[in-house]
Amino acid sequence: MIGHGFMGAAHSQGWRTAPRFFDLPAEPVMQLIVGRTGIEASADKLGWPETATDWREAIARDDIDIIDIVTPGDSHAEIAIAALEAGKHVLCEKPLANTAEEADAMASAAERAAAKGVFAMTGFTYRRVPATALARDMVAAGKVGAIHSVRASYLQDWLTDPEAPYTWRSQKELAGSGALGDIGAHAIDLAQFVTGMRLASVSGTIETITKKRPIPGKPGEYGDVTVDDLALFSGRFENGVLAQFEASRFSTGRKNALRLEVSGDRGAIAFDLEDLNFLEYYDATAPVEQQGFTRIMVTEPQHPYVAAWWPAGHMLGYEHGFSNQVRDFVTGIVESVQPTPSFADGAQVQHVLSAIESSSSNGSAWTVIDQ
Amino acid sequence: MIGHGFMGAAHSQGWRTAPRFFDLPAEPVMQLIVGRTGIEASADKLGWPETATDWREAIARDDIDIIDIVTPGDSHAEIAIAALEAGKHVLCEKPLANTAEEADAMASAAERAAAKGVFAMTGFTYRRVPATALARDMVAAGKVGAIHSVRASYLQDWLTDPEAPYTWRSQKELAGSGALGDIGAHAIDLAQFVTGMRLASVSGTIETITKKRPIPGKPGEYGDVTVDDLALFSGRFENGVLAQFEASRFSTGRKNALRLEVSGDRGAIAFDLEDLNFLEYYDATAPVEQQGFTRIMVTEPQHPYVAAWWPAGHMLGYEHGFSNQVRDFVTGIVESVQPTPSFADGAQVQHVLSAIESSSSNGSAWTVIDQ
Amino acid sequence: MIGHGFMGAAHSQGWRTAPRFFDLPAEPVMQLIVGRTGIEASADKLGWPETATDWREAIARDDIDIIDIVTPGDSHAEIAIAALEAGKHVLCEKPLANTAEEADAMASAAERAAAKGVFAMTGFTYRRVPATALARDMVAAGKVGAIHSVRASYLQDWLTDPEAPYTWRSQKELAGSGALGDIGAHAIDLAQFVTGMRLASVSGTIETITKKRPIPGKPGEYGDVTVDDLALFSGRFENGVLAQFEASRFSTGRKNALRLEVSGDRGAIAFDLEDLNFLEYYDATAPVEQQGFTRIMVTEPQHPYVAAWWPAGHMLGYEHGFSNQVRDFVTGIVESVQPTPSFADGAQVQHVLSAIESSSSNGSAWTVIDQ
Amino acid sequence: MIGHGFMGAAHSQGWRTAPRFFDLPAEPVMQLIVGRTGIEASADKLGWPETATDWREAIARDDIDIIDIVTPGDSHAEIAIAALEAGKHVLCEKPLANTAEEADAMASAAERAAAKGVFAMTGFTYRRVPATALARDMVAAGKVGAIHSVRASYLQDWLTDPEAPYTWRSQKELAGSGALGDIGAHAIDLAQFVTGMRLASVSGTIETITKKRPIPGKPGEYGDVTVDDLALFSGRFENGVLAQFEASRFSTGRKNALRLEVSGDRGAIAFDLEDLNFLEYYDATAPVEQQGFTRIMVTEPQHPYVAAWWPAGHMLGYEHGFSNQVRDFVTGIVESVQPTPSFADGAQVQHVLSAIESSSSNGSAWTVIDQ
Repeated sequence: MIGHGFMGAAHSQGWRTAPRFFDLPAEPVMQLIVGRTGIEASADKLGWPETATDWREAIARDDIDIIDIVTPGDSHAEIAIAALEAGKHVLCEKPLANTAEEADAMASAAERAAAKGVFAMTGFTYRRVPATALARDMVAAGKVGAIHSVRASYLQDWLTDPEAPYTWRSQKELAGSGALGDIGAHAIDLAQFVTGMRLASVSGTIETITKKRPIPGKPGEYGDVTVDDLALFSGRFENGVLAQFEASRFSTGRKNALRLEVSGDRGAIAFDLEDLNFLEYYDATAPVEQQGFTRIMVTEPQHPYVAAWWPAGHMLGYEHGFSNQVRDFVTGIVESVQPTPSFADGAQVQHVLSAIESSSSNGSAWTVIDQ
Repeated sequence: MIGHGFMGAAHSQGWRTAPRFFDLPAEPVMQLIVGRTGIEASADKLGWPETATDWREAIARDDIDIIDIVTPGDSHAEIAIAALEAGKHVLCEKPLANTAEEADAMASAAERAAAKGVFAMTGFTYRRVPATALARDMVAAGKVGAIHSVRASYLQDWLTDPEAPYTWRSQKELAGSGALGDIGAHAIDLAQFVTGMRLASVSGTIETITKKRPIPGKPGEYGDVTVDDLALFSGRFENGVLAQFEASRFSTGRKNALRLEVSGDRGAIAFDLEDLNFLEYYDATAPVEQQGFTRIMVTEPQHPYVAAWWPAGHMLGYEHGFSNQVRDFVTGIVESVQPTPSFADGAQVQHVLSAIESSSSNGSAWTVIDQ
Repeated sequence: MIGHGFMGAAHSQGWRTAPRFFDLPAEPVMQLIVGRTGIEASADKLGWPETATDWREAIARDDIDIIDIVTPGDSHAEIAIAALEAGKHVLCEKPLANTAEEADAMASAAERAAAKGVFAMTGFTYRRVPATALARDMVAAGKVGAIHSVRASYLQDWLTDPEAPYTWRSQKELAGSGALGDIGAHAIDLAQFVTGMRLASVSGTIETITKKRPIPGKPGEYGDVTVDDLALFSGRFENGVLAQFEASRFSTGRKNALRLEVSGDRGAIAFDLEDLNFLEYYDATAPVEQQGFTRIMVTEPQHPYVAAWWPAGHMLGYEHGFSNQVRDFVTGIVESVQPTPSFADGAQVQHVLSAIESSSSNGSAWTVIDQ
Repeated sequence: MIGHGFMGAAHSQGWRTAPRFFDLPAEPVMQLIVGRTGIEASADKLGWPETATDWREAIARDDIDIIDIVTPGDSHAEIAIAALEAGKHVLCEKPLANTAEEADAMASAAERAAAKGVFAMTGFTYRRVPATALARDMVAAGKVGAIHSVRASYLQDWLTDPEAPYTWRSQKELAGSGALGDIGAHAIDLAQFVTGMRLASVSGTIETITKKRPIPGKPGEYGDVTVDDLALFSGRFENGVLAQFEASRFSTGRKNALRLEVSGDRGAIAFDLEDLNFLEYYDATAPVEQQGFTRIMVTEPQHPYVAAWWPAGHMLGYEHGFSNQVRDFVTGIVESVQPTPSFADGAQVQHVLSAIESSSSNGSAWTVIDQ
């Protein structure tokens, strides 16, 4: 694993836990963690037996088959392409890259590798929440019918505090983008994943509400925030259906509200990550006097991923998506079936993000997504 | 109408409004309101053209067909029996009386009157909330199947404040009982109404949490609270099914939470008066992966009473039950069909209350309801 | 009252009920209702003693002081201007008019009339829901602090059914606009009312999802829908704050979801008309471990309008806003204080709607609101 | 670890995960798992390197310091007492034993062991949900003030299906009791833990709704259910406060609803395990117009246990309580401080259960808890 921050902890828990709950076709072994500083302590905490400070060491090792990239986005392309070319399967955190160009290069590398049975996957982990997977299955099964409209948002509030510090996430050259790329990307991916439809064009505005933030350790000094912290946009899918999106780090009181609502002529589904064990489903074909949103507790063995976990009514948390992701990734590798989302899927989201930025620079004009 | 307090306002609004929304078989005319003090102001406020200070005047009038009794419980029996004997149809607020004996006398008078086409009805208005009426219909249609258990409660918190004043509601000789008779009676009636089952025996405890309260207008003087403010009891229906009940005026933060949950082998329904436009329904016969509580917004024209009101999604409030009650009462009178709940139904609830008090006095022992 | 449809019923209930609950400075008398067809039946049902078929009759009568206009939008301007010029106070349903030009003419007439003590008011009734009035008060009192972002939507689903009939609401020449003007106008007004801020520019897209609808009574014939049924737009307030809006008649399962969320640096408030007795409030200044959205049941006597109604915990419904509106309108007239929203306020919303339509025709480009 | 069923999996995940998130004073090593049949497969799945078929082997080993007992209740006493006498620290799943006598013996053994620095703990894991721990802290800090009443229930529905099979949980000699001991015990412990008060007497009824169940693998054969599946009871705390309890396996649609509500003169708290990341808090000292239940998302680093896990808004699940329990148990051992709940605490709950059974056998009469 390359990287050892918040995502490093989450991915480690996934690698450690998945084999204990799923019957995997091969048991992954946690071998080596890479980081430039403080990696010994991280290895100890996260449970990795070996460490390195240069990711090239990991790629050079013959006994390592899988590279898991959890670094900031500016290093994804270089590492992933090198790993794929070295014949390693690659799991890479989203956003796939900081620019559409890098993402395209990664997708090309992944396509070449796949031809040799080496697979790459983008870490849109929220596809692995049982409720979102159920939503996808229900839409695919026609439960919402023909889709009329889509609403997706990802709302957080950790920048509401004007004293929230200046970090790598505040800087476009490191983070690529702000709320749009960090959390808006999840909303876009989830909307496309659940509906099975692709966005064709977008119109929107991105905004930096707080333009300067205090630099930690340098009292009185402020850094220029060069990323957005609020993104409002609409999208039109290839089939003409409209969707509305919001990504915000200023939505006071909303901590991690990735929300999706899909409305169709036979029903609707609604999801909120702050209530992740539930999926709301409206069956517009039921007798009128019994219609309403059904709050499905997605903890039955019949639900996606759940049979491996606990009995009905025993809740899953944030981290379970990472174990479910390991299950799907390892299964894809062993069975030689491309796991999804592929790097191409990740790159497509990157193109959506680019188109939104273009639209915002162009007075919110509708902008075709280049793909 | 006899009485002009809170219930007087609610009933007045029902009489005034019902003919404007329902196509009634006869249009009631608000004629005379009776009260011992301040009745002129009340008549003006509540919209009654004539006043009297003695209820006997109302009964003596030939041009009055209906007597609506909204006084405290200690006067119900005398007025209602006199009115029925005078050939007036009677609507009487719950609890029907302060004792089971009075209630029985009223039920007998009502039975005699009914034989002559004169009808009496008990004001358990919460049967007329569209959601509770829908619940009853759904249970009757087998939507919950064989009932396994029932849970009912009525939670308020207006006595949480130790300085809440000493009133007629604090005194057993005036109010008959406290939380048990005032709000527990609603929980009992609703549980029996929705399930279509009758309680056969009870076990419970009634408690006075705050035993003295300040007498308004007499600084430093306190009155002895002689009624309960918390009642916890279980009941067994005639068919053996168990139910649990709570009536509380000390449930901090709950303002008017009349709740009912009925669990059966095919489903469940749940209601809360603080959310009165909705009924929760669990369909245990649905595919497992789609099961959950469906939040039915009971505002469709197909729902009980609703067609007379507003379009779907336009909420009804507390007072609409009183208009719906007028509809049912007037319809019963004109069509010469006994409206429900009858005085016999009201008296049965009174017997349940008596049995609970007996059980409480007897160490919570299971006590058969005398009926 | 001119008009006798759904809004006629709602306004009638307001006029009839307000004097029974509020201590009004003058008691309004329901005198005359005007409609071209079927007006006798409506008068009987809605409780009006006299009828007319031409609105000019109402304006010509000396004993009529107030004209309440509840007709479709295409007739508002002519009636309202004539009524104001005849010295009648005017309450006019929203949207104020079908075009910004008409609305401006009405606002001018209202300004002239106000100089003579004759007042006009726009019927944005949802300002009179206690919870929205509380929201406004709390924002004004600084409870959310400096506002960072606003989200408002009005979601319905009655056009989800492709067989929903072709009506006057389907036709731009009669209805003025579709979801945008009918319900989007409420979202705009509520967002401006609660925040106390005015929109300066907008960017958005309006869409007609179902383009033909069956003409009632003419089997096999379909009419062209010339109004929008989905509107997605963003707005920027004069102070630079961004807001996102949606108005939809295709939001499956949402019946009447007028929603508003205002996020600031000290807190947030959230409202949903489907849950109208509650206001959600997030206090970001509370101790961190106790922060969360507080679900305020807006039924206390301390809350706006509520003291006139029922005890705490007894829910109000849709129609109560119309009584509250009568209270404010009559009070304004008698005390000679301009009631709000004025016709100028109504016209401003009309300009926002026009700017959204312009933006939509112009590729969603940001468009300055002409005011 | 002795046992390898559902609880075996949960405890294993706790032992494996706790050291990866908490800074423990000593790192536990998962060494040996014991089971009579199929233990090799379980060891492989659950991640234990060694196995045994007799629990005495575990106790005999010098390199094992901790015994974790997750077998059915009938074997708890023998194993736990032997382990304590052998100087092993013991974590034992609830209910502590199948009878109060066994539990008392275990508590005595634990008291003797504690004198030598060897500790025992009862596995009431739901004390370790951050929201319940927060509830306890808030009650202790006076946030609800003087407690007026308590309501606790544990509702499940897995026996609603009449074809649910006959298992060890159906038999009193193996399971000790049914809904009462299995889930009612949690409700009792949680109510006592959060309030800091102890029950002194109880009154209640336990019931077996379905009296025969099909024996798996023996078509047509049915076993007699000798345990309860519904328990309704009231309790009185030592300070006189009343509480109402329900434990049900027939509450259709409720999968794992351990609920607690504590009402006091300064506020209230409410919890539901089906919504485990949240705690509802009503502050009755707030300005009246802002009062309401605050939905605290218990995911802030300031909340109990949470700092070790994920950032705010990233939800925890059922299993996290087991890691939190390991943290507290290991910390207690290393720091030589008795971890809670002790075996004495577990035995006290057992006495409450016994008193309820006595009351039920005695017509629901109020019964003093022998302790």
